[in-house]
Amino acid sequence: MGRRNVGILLFEDVEVLDFAGPYEVFSRTRLEPGVESRRSEDSAPFDVFTVAAEPGELRVTGGLRVVPDYGFATAPVIDVLLVPGGFGTRALLEDDTVVDWIRVRAAEAERVTSVCTGALLLASAGLLANRRATTHWAALDLLADVDASIDVTGEARVVEDDIVTSAGVSAGIDMALTVVERLHGRAVAEETARYMEYRWLPEGVLDD
Amino acid sequence: MGRRNVGILLFEDVEVLDFAGPYEVFSRTRLEPGVESRRSEDSAPFDVFTVAAEPGELRVTGGLRVVPDYGFATAPVIDVLLVPGGFGTRALLEDDTVVDWIRVRAAEAERVTSVCTGALLLASAGLLANRRATTHWAALDLLADVDASIDVTGEARVVEDDIVTSAGVSAGIDMALTVVERLHGRAVAEETARYMEYRWLPEGVLDD
Repeated sequence: MGRRNVGILLFEDVEVLDFAGPYEVFSRTRLEPGVESRRSEDSAPFDVFTVAAEPGELRVTGGLRVVPDYGFATAPVIDVLLVPGGFGTRALLEDDTVVDWIRVRAAEAERVTSVCTGALLLASAGLLANRRATTHWAALDLLADVDASIDVTGEARVVEDDIVTSAGVSAGIDMALTVVERLHGRAVAEETARYMEYRWLPEGVLDD
Repeated sequence: MGRRNVGILLFEDVEVLDFAGPYEVFSRTRLEPGVESRRSEDSAPFDVFTVAAEPGELRVTGGLRVVPDYGFATAPVIDVLLVPGGFGTRALLEDDTVVDWIRVRAAEAERVTSVCTGALLLASAGLLANRRATTHWAALDLLADVDASIDVTGEARVVEDDIVTSAGVSAGIDMALTVVERLHGRAVAEETARYMEYRWLPEGVLDD
């Protein structure tokens, strides 16, 4: 297949690093190793874009101003769906527009992932039912409250049970590297971590 | 003193995580521990904003669309100046508007910091002369080329020699946590790392 589309959900008060860490990983992965290969898209296996309910500038945590590439109505097909977290998730748990969009796009996607309290949104969409999953350490109980059938664990930074969830904030980098590994192999993922000078410990992954 | 202003330089093709990692750290630091304290700015010791030469939307690496809070002409006083890196730095090394702005703002700032190849811009402004400094592993030679008086080291993720430089991309998170530690103590920095679920190893710091 050609490049996979990575669609990253944005919303008001999404946590900065929740989406920016995986954005870095997916947008800077190259099948050709080295630094120079990052100067072009020639060996880039992913097209990364951001999507929000409506087009137009958003404020993420801390006030950073970000403009999504697409609104829900115009977003291209998504192969890897990424739902980040942050305090902004709470307001969205009962937002049918957002939860329904996640459910529809997840059904079409090859991989569905979350960072931090993004798992709450996946849970609200029913996507984590009877699965093992994780979230930020402070939201583990809340995740079980959203759907009691979830086998919530705080034992790993990344949990794979078809859907890939991760612990808080910076663990999204590990989650993205794990997805890169599954799709393109350990060497490509490790080389991307090296480019980013990120101390990746793949053994932090808990398989179901 | 009151809150310190953290001014983060943005430019076309700045590396996403170079600025977003420290943005997360500084904007989410709280003097009051816990998750709830992050819901307000009450115990926030930093005001974080972004600055670019001109106002208006920028494309950072991978295509993320970001809107700076200020242009050079209107940016408030900066206490902690942060210069990120990325392929976009190369075009700026000879850009007097940018290099002069860095020099002027650095002279007024309490702390001057860089991530990754942001060190090249500090060097171009003459700020690293006769200092120990670091940058991305692939740019160590280039840093010495910009200013041969720099004691370039690739031995640590963070190097403090009055000015604080860091290794590539994700090492900016370590750099920011180091600055938080210097200004507010180890406990506040560690608690911020814990909130972010970031594996911070403060011993990665090389003091001059």
